[in-house]
Amino acid sequence: MVTATLVQRLIDSKYEDLPEQTLIEAKRSLLNWLGVAIGAAWHPSMDMVMGLADTVGGKAQATVLGRGVKTDILFAALLNGMSSHIFDFDDTLLETVLHPSAPVYPAILSYAELKGLTGKDVLQAFVLGCEVEERLALSLYPSHYWRGWHITGTVGTVGAAAAIAKLQGLDHLRFSYAIGLAATEPTGLREMFGTMTKPFHPGKAAMNGLMAALLAESGFTSSTQSLEAKRGYGHVLSEEPKFERVTDRWGETWEILKNSYKPFASGIVTHPAIDGAVRIRNKHSILPEQVASIELEVHPLVEELTGKTNPQTGLEGKFSVYHCTAVGLIDGKAGVKQFSDERVKDERVVALRDKIRLSVNREMQEDQALIRATLNDGRVIEEFIEHAIGSMDVPMTNAQLEEKFYDVTADVLPADKQKQLVELVWEFDKLEDLSQFFALCSK
Amino acid sequence: MVTATLVQRLIDSKYEDLPEQTLIEAKRSLLNWLGVAIGAAWHPSMDMVMGLADTVGGKAQATVLGRGVKTDILFAALLNGMSSHIFDFDDTLLETVLHPSAPVYPAILSYAELKGLTGKDVLQAFVLGCEVEERLALSLYPSHYWRGWHITGTVGTVGAAAAIAKLQGLDHLRFSYAIGLAATEPTGLREMFGTMTKPFHPGKAAMNGLMAALLAESGFTSSTQSLEAKRGYGHVLSEEPKFERVTDRWGETWEILKNSYKPFASGIVTHPAIDGAVRIRNKHSILPEQVASIELEVHPLVEELTGKTNPQTGLEGKFSVYHCTAVGLIDGKAGVKQFSDERVKDERVVALRDKIRLSVNREMQEDQALIRATLNDGRVIEEFIEHAIGSMDVPMTNAQLEEKFYDVTADVLPADKQKQLVELVWEFDKLEDLSQFFALCSK
Repeated sequence: MVTATLVQRLIDSKYEDLPEQTLIEAKRSLLNWLGVAIGAAWHPSMDMVMGLADTVGGKAQATVLGRGVKTDILFAALLNGMSSHIFDFDDTLLETVLHPSAPVYPAILSYAELKGLTGKDVLQAFVLGCEVEERLALSLYPSHYWRGWHITGTVGTVGAAAAIAKLQGLDHLRFSYAIGLAATEPTGLREMFGTMTKPFHPGKAAMNGLMAALLAESGFTSSTQSLEAKRGYGHVLSEEPKFERVTDRWGETWEILKNSYKPFASGIVTHPAIDGAVRIRNKHSILPEQVASIELEVHPLVEELTGKTNPQTGLEGKFSVYHCTAVGLIDGKAGVKQFSDERVKDERVVALRDKIRLSVNREMQEDQALIRATLNDGRVIEEFIEHAIGSMDVPMTNAQLEEKFYDVTADVLPADKQKQLVELVWEFDKLEDLSQFFALCSK
Repeated sequence: MVTATLVQRLIDSKYEDLPEQTLIEAKRSLLNWLGVAIGAAWHPSMDMVMGLADTVGGKAQATVLGRGVKTDILFAALLNGMSSHIFDFDDTLLETVLHPSAPVYPAILSYAELKGLTGKDVLQAFVLGCEVEERLALSLYPSHYWRGWHITGTVGTVGAAAAIAKLQGLDHLRFSYAIGLAATEPTGLREMFGTMTKPFHPGKAAMNGLMAALLAESGFTSSTQSLEAKRGYGHVLSEEPKFERVTDRWGETWEILKNSYKPFASGIVTHPAIDGAVRIRNKHSILPEQVASIELEVHPLVEELTGKTNPQTGLEGKFSVYHCTAVGLIDGKAGVKQFSDERVKDERVVALRDKIRLSVNREMQEDQALIRATLNDGRVIEEFIEHAIGSMDVPMTNAQLEEKFYDVTADVLPADKQKQLVELVWEFDKLEDLSQFFALCSK
């Protein structure tokens, strides 16, 4: 009954019944997701998929964000899903390591552009698609993830299909077919992490989910109990599927409210130290040349995962809490540019990095850090981070999300378009026509 | 090392080194596969996918077999892969229930048509793609299948990617990427059996495998150890992956030689009884009106799975050994048409069906049956089937494959095209240009 119940709840759901806070979070997710999607639009892997899209030569139906071209709706979903996960800088449901926006928003935007839908349509579909994939993630986790599945790809497909089926207004039977067609294509092995295939997973999830819903709309049949059947999605993909998580308390709790956004482009264990460095910089306006030494007290995992003292490439920089802290103090941020090969080799960054000493404090929580800077003039400045920015306890503010958006899209969009886009996202529920929005997404 | 070894063996393989028998079996597989693909070309599910292909509107690059149109290479692979599995009448590797041609031939034909390749190219790519998927199937089976995976979709993707990568002549690294990109998209849950989504699986496998190889060719990166890694394909998809089956004795044994073809369009347990009925008809030229009664002695599974005495639809007819035997005796075959709703309700068929009595013989093997017809004039005619036609012991002859081809394509192709196609398939290794072949595949 899980599939049937889920489908009925999705069919019954009305825009008016969605709590205001879910729509606000959908906009915050959109701003964060859109920024990283536009920012990575010209990554070499995007050129490769764009090349394939050109080879098959579908109609110009949906915008490839940041690239100023349209391609067919399926390839647009794949491309936008991929680009938004390339920086590893998209949103996260921390409990399950799911990245909810990357598979769902691209499918919705492809379909919305094709059909001329409104901002409200998009937001509603996202809240529901997000709810589906997050509940599915919670039902499959943890054995699913630990077995080796990239959960963003596997549940994202179903979330995307559900979002589109809602937009299509499918009847119960066809809605179930859409879920079934999506469920039969779980995409993504964790073995692919570190290669271009990782961001390919949410992209393919968006493409497959959209395709599933489009086929279901035409009456293409599938199982109507795909999630709970003996040889269906839940039992095949998890050792202990918790089906009650899929539908229990539907409408009372909203998983989207737990969506979190990364303020820094490195792994989450480095965030407390960076947060501390940024605060010291912002409060005291010190230059790196004024610093005699820095002591960092951190959770043991920080040293274990990011203890690289002498990184040589941008990617290695992400695994060096020394580099992370140094750029935090010099640049006041740790975005995509702080992890370029050039930045890692920058003289001032290297000089400051070498002044940092790390000590492990087993009493500390993972989202805590203490940073103590001794200046040349003898002053000692200290910051204790109780909960790093971006954690559930200290979510990024709208202003911080805007700043991140400006930062990650700086190389792709002119300033005026950045500004207009940010304004449009906050007013997204008022957009009757999305064409201006799509036009602003490229230079 | 499994992935690396497999890739190296595929790269090193030369057409000249393939045993003659593998190429003959590739042609037999092609004839069988092509017939069922063309025969089901106008199934409603094909119209639905064709509709989606038209919506996205890719270039006319590759032929949709039986429909007289071209669409883009990806959708052509999907459509041809689907149609060839709709009748459930395609080839089988009996040990693993894998249907090897449905995911691999469509990908190869799409690519070959786009690039103007030769018949030899196609046959070589099929032998190798088939070898890859069959060895993978043997390495994952049985836990993979029993957990709920539709093995034709899951291993077919990798087989298709390998076949295309061979045609592309990829270097070792890019060939590994193609395998990795395919491995990360296992498609197909057994829960979908009985719906249009079942044949969708090999179609999507063909589409995804082709796409994987095309992306890998452009340098799209993936894992180079996708099959054997801790969180890779084998361990995620099977409880006891037997990696040695993937590469051991490569070049000494050829799995394609075990490919079997179904002579009758119903489940395999009914085949011995049908075989017996056809033989009685052919030897004695009796009319159903001459028959007083028929006794069938069969393996217990026959009654359990196909004991329906009064079927009302074509599909139910497949689960009635009474109907199967009756059409075998009247029509001398049990092809797609013998399982139409009309045929199941035909007066002569019903009259003969009602004269059949079933008895279970626990001593019998699954591929055995005894049929004893008592005629009105008192004569008793008996046939004991020791191994049913289509089993490994009594493979279908070329003439029988031709007859099946004529039968399944009769509604789609005119007789002259049928004849020319059959001739072309037997001469496939001599085709320098496939355009005539593709032109013959539709009315």
